[in-house]
Amino acid sequence: MVVLRSYVSGSWRAPEDEGAPLRDAVTGEEVARISSAGIDMGGALEYGRRTGGPVLRELTFHQRASLLKALASHLREHREELYALSARTGATLADSKFDVDGGIGVLFAYASKGKRELPNDTVLVEGDVEPLGRGGTFVGQHLCTPSHGVAVQINAFNFPVWGPLEKLAPAFLAGVPSLIKPASQTAYLTARLVELIVESGILPEGTVQMICGDPGDLLDHLTEQDIVGFTGSASTARLLRTHPAIVGNAVRFNAEADSLNCSILGPDAAPGTPEFDLYVKQLVQEMTVKAGQKCTAIRRALVPAALIGDVAEAVRERLAKVTVGNPADPEVRMGALAGLDQREEVRRSLKALLDAGGLVFGDPERVEVRGADPERGAFMSPILLRADDASRAEPHEVEAFGPVSTLLPYEGADQAVELAVRGRGSLAGSVVTADAEFARHVVLGTAPWHGRLLVLNSENAEESTGHGSPLPALVHGGPGRAGGGEEMGGIRGVVHHMRRTAVQAGPAMLTAISGRWVPGTDRRVTGEHPFRKHLEDLRVGDTAVGGPRTVTLEDVEHFAEFTGDVFYAHMDEEAARANPFFGGRVAHGYLVVSFAAGLFVDPAPGPVLANYGLENLRFLTPVKPGDELTVTLTAKQITPREGADYGEVRWDTDVTNQEGASVAKYDVLTLVAKRPKQD
Amino acid sequence: MVVLRSYVSGSWRAPEDEGAPLRDAVTGEEVARISSAGIDMGGALEYGRRTGGPVLRELTFHQRASLLKALASHLREHREELYALSARTGATLADSKFDVDGGIGVLFAYASKGKRELPNDTVLVEGDVEPLGRGGTFVGQHLCTPSHGVAVQINAFNFPVWGPLEKLAPAFLAGVPSLIKPASQTAYLTARLVELIVESGILPEGTVQMICGDPGDLLDHLTEQDIVGFTGSASTARLLRTHPAIVGNAVRFNAEADSLNCSILGPDAAPGTPEFDLYVKQLVQEMTVKAGQKCTAIRRALVPAALIGDVAEAVRERLAKVTVGNPADPEVRMGALAGLDQREEVRRSLKALLDAGGLVFGDPERVEVRGADPERGAFMSPILLRADDASRAEPHEVEAFGPVSTLLPYEGADQAVELAVRGRGSLAGSVVTADAEFARHVVLGTAPWHGRLLVLNSENAEESTGHGSPLPALVHGGPGRAGGGEEMGGIRGVVHHMRRTAVQAGPAMLTAISGRWVPGTDRRVTGEHPFRKHLEDLRVGDTAVGGPRTVTLEDVEHFAEFTGDVFYAHMDEEAARANPFFGGRVAHGYLVVSFAAGLFVDPAPGPVLANYGLENLRFLTPVKPGDELTVTLTAKQITPREGADYGEVRWDTDVTNQEGASVAKYDVLTLVAKRPKQD
Repeated sequence: MVVLRSYVSGSWRAPEDEGAPLRDAVTGEEVARISSAGIDMGGALEYGRRTGGPVLRELTFHQRASLLKALASHLREHREELYALSARTGATLADSKFDVDGGIGVLFAYASKGKRELPNDTVLVEGDVEPLGRGGTFVGQHLCTPSHGVAVQINAFNFPVWGPLEKLAPAFLAGVPSLIKPASQTAYLTARLVELIVESGILPEGTVQMICGDPGDLLDHLTEQDIVGFTGSASTARLLRTHPAIVGNAVRFNAEADSLNCSILGPDAAPGTPEFDLYVKQLVQEMTVKAGQKCTAIRRALVPAALIGDVAEAVRERLAKVTVGNPADPEVRMGALAGLDQREEVRRSLKALLDAGGLVFGDPERVEVRGADPERGAFMSPILLRADDASRAEPHEVEAFGPVSTLLPYEGADQAVELAVRGRGSLAGSVVTADAEFARHVVLGTAPWHGRLLVLNSENAEESTGHGSPLPALVHGGPGRAGGGEEMGGIRGVVHHMRRTAVQAGPAMLTAISGRWVPGTDRRVTGEHPFRKHLEDLRVGDTAVGGPRTVTLEDVEHFAEFTGDVFYAHMDEEAARANPFFGGRVAHGYLVVSFAAGLFVDPAPGPVLANYGLENLRFLTPVKPGDELTVTLTAKQITPREGADYGEVRWDTDVTNQEGASVAKYDVLTLVAKRPKQD
Repeated sequence: MVVLRSYVSGSWRAPEDEGAPLRDAVTGEEVARISSAGIDMGGALEYGRRTGGPVLRELTFHQRASLLKALASHLREHREELYALSARTGATLADSKFDVDGGIGVLFAYASKGKRELPNDTVLVEGDVEPLGRGGTFVGQHLCTPSHGVAVQINAFNFPVWGPLEKLAPAFLAGVPSLIKPASQTAYLTARLVELIVESGILPEGTVQMICGDPGDLLDHLTEQDIVGFTGSASTARLLRTHPAIVGNAVRFNAEADSLNCSILGPDAAPGTPEFDLYVKQLVQEMTVKAGQKCTAIRRALVPAALIGDVAEAVRERLAKVTVGNPADPEVRMGALAGLDQREEVRRSLKALLDAGGLVFGDPERVEVRGADPERGAFMSPILLRADDASRAEPHEVEAFGPVSTLLPYEGADQAVELAVRGRGSLAGSVVTADAEFARHVVLGTAPWHGRLLVLNSENAEESTGHGSPLPALVHGGPGRAGGGEEMGGIRGVVHHMRRTAVQAGPAMLTAISGRWVPGTDRRVTGEHPFRKHLEDLRVGDTAVGGPRTVTLEDVEHFAEFTGDVFYAHMDEEAARANPFFGGRVAHGYLVVSFAAGLFVDPAPGPVLANYGLENLRFLTPVKPGDELTVTLTAKQITPREGADYGEVRWDTDVTNQEGASVAKYDVLTLVAKRPKQD
């Protein structure tokens, strides 16, 4: 008898009692037993806060990203083992890949985003410096710092691998340790996942813990720095949301609940069009992947009234080819539900749905099963319903969390929006159409009720990941019925685990706190050109000043002739005078920045390897022939690359004229070498 | 007898009963009566959703910003009237300006930010286009659209003007109508404010409503599209947060509760330093402004143990000069609390605080009052306490919402952080120090517990707005005890009233939906150069192609000599070969963009008035002598300016070489004229 252990406070703990059995969805055999008896919940939280948190906060975003990447690679090596366990949850190999590879993909995606979109630092500087006074001595800046608590994740049974990993990745990258509470039904798979994570030794101790079984008094111990991420039913979400410790401490609570997602077929997509076929194929796929046990699955299929018969027929035909049975059999397209209880719940919901519509395909009570005992396994036929009165409440309110969808007819784009909105908040919706006008109308009309909307047609069909797939770069979650939460969404999901603080200070003080040079801070000009300094020797505030150089009319005319940029504002005094901004001939902006580079560059080979870009360039004052240009270049942000022999340096660049007015401001982006390694 | 009316469903409604009296804080006289008896709460919400929402959503962000600006100007004209009513709440003229001018300032700030930082559009495109497939046919983009509900604001008594306006401004700019529920105690001032708003006719009907008196069953009618913003006590916040309609519909709920804010004096700030004086002055100010009835006021004054005697003495001296009394008297520095009940509550809290510390200044039961009857008005002395055992619970947990602060000693920066954090979440904190190391340590250490942190010293003292002033550009709100919310913060507060939806589509479809040209969408090349088109005639996707032009070694050398940019990578083959990125001499990036401009520019006078900037320039492939450059310029975003005869056009710019590889990508920013007006 396998009894699942919890991993808390630095070690694996077996429960103090025998635990309850968890059964194979296909055979009904006992897979493992589960219980949390004797686990010190408060101690686990405190361990995460005291042990995992401080270690994580010492690491930079890039270092955390590297660990996520290493973990992803490690787990990829052990995929087969996870697939095998996953089959016992009723999942086909395709389903298992969706869960396992999907989860590993989230780790890779966050590793990559962390390195590309976050600084190699422990603090995230967000947004621009806000001027708070006219004199420039008082400014504001938003900083994001990691919460000093634990990210408690309460997962659903349907994605035992993806679920924990999509919550772990952004939390870890933010610098916040996780405590994983898998749903019991499929906890044996999550438990093996966590074993693989712990065995790998890749993540610092205390940054991942897991509690198998009842969470007991876990939530009672939450503080204002902890964060709860919940995925599951709306009723459980309500219960958790009103927990006294969550309410009393204003604990950040994110809920992702099942919703009555819709997919809308455009009126253009008649039989014979690629969109018709895409719609039918996608609907069948969403009904059958994971046996329909997906929070994002299509529950409401909204089709033009004129096409409902055609759609019903096409879906019916396709469903008839779906083989249900033992997922170990390669012929099987759809496996079992997660358990017999789950199947009972789906049948109960179906009774309500059948009040509003008729059966198009499938029998709720019986199904032909391949390679398994239909009595012991939680098998069920895909069920397609059709409700010709789309205004009935049931299809918009009752969710059967299984291979069940209802066809509903609509007339015109406005009614499509109206019906979609009756879901009162969804995780995902889709519109299948080649008609841009229809798509725009429906997307903008239903957006406030959706976390994600897919427009599918032949333009993107080949690459589309489909209606039901949340992606790490995009937000996952939806308003209202869907729980009102938001997960992932790229760096948004990281920031969710951090606290945003508006820091007000003088510029020099803000530079010291944020580690970025803030305009208004003294610039450090020494005898040594900062381009002669290696990355480690450079400090924010190091400055080069070049110029002055006079811009002559000959320069302007020469530049025009050389580049071909003979725009009238540079070449024709009379026409330029009529221009509302110039009042006479002006130098090219490109001439100004080119001259500026000539003034600030240090020509000999040295640590500065390349100017790889330029940002936020604004031309602020026209440059007239005779103006004298001076450029001031100040190291603003220094970002060493992990595992590379260089880093990035961003330089604040200010080109001024003889009156001291800025004519152009921008950031110059360079790559700067680290010191050569000593052999 | 004045009975306050509510403004709901398009008209002013008097209550059906006599209402309860509201009393002048200074004289105890009845100012008005209040009741909501007979008001149809659900009807008001539905009216906002059906009337105000659709009208607002038709306006662009810039149009809404213009209305906010007009409203701000209108209210500024009526300031005196509001000051006069404000005096009846116990406020001095300075207090009234803080409230009234502060609120008007928020309107102006949002009007300005809306025009500068938001598009002239009804949809907010957020973040970058996310590639979702390798082939470029499947991409994602986050869009923010207005919630289709009402922003219900439940305000506190202490800022009857600023409170409603700081919530109204971001909601209105987002496109969401407001329903204002003022705290009864000072509702007569908010009621007059709303009268001024309604009378002005500036805001569209249905976008502002107000309910005076008990909210009755208002919250029962909330749907998933409504938003609640609450300011007040932590206990009321808890109650509202667990309301069945809020929980059941996952209504976005933002709470801003009083907190035990701290101000930390740095160890460097001994008597005689400017920081010592700033600290003492600020502490007295925070204790006495609004008679200490500010959610952001300093409740805990953390000072180095060695300096506590000096600070106590200096604060005591200063407090002794504060004249308490009738705010109509110009000599008076501190007015009355909002009412006698409020004073009773402060005295109750003081009893608990006195268990942990002794009185340094003030008598909770008596105070010398100038120009008013001390029995009838809610007057109270400023009270400074000193708790030498800083580890006691009371100072960190008991809030006396009046002119009350406690001095607490600390030893070393770590203990300062530890004590600050014992507030378990604050709206605002401050550190008064000239020591950057100390400031950095304390700011980063306490940031996760603070919504806002001020570092005050002689660098910014002249311009600083002080510890207690929330600013529209910065977030207002804090974790834990402070309610866990976030208001304002510039555009963040606008987005809070919108729904974020991840839209997945092919590039052309996404272009049609978002109104911005997405790379991968067909470019439209016609005989007419797009620079010849006026703003109204230009369409996203309009494209100019220029080139090819061969870059010669002579060009590179000539450019180097002309600009002075003789960086070795351009001039020295051997040295350039040693560069890890170039492997030989390369053209200047500035040469590439200058040639590109020469290739795309259309020289004759026309609608394109100026190139005012450039963004996101990345040099992607080195350009070698002999390479041929082609530039493709595509209209990406078109932003007409309200009330100007031009707008902004952002052009996607792609410079490619003879192999079709991109050598540089960037956005060119131009000003383009509208069609000349017909006379």
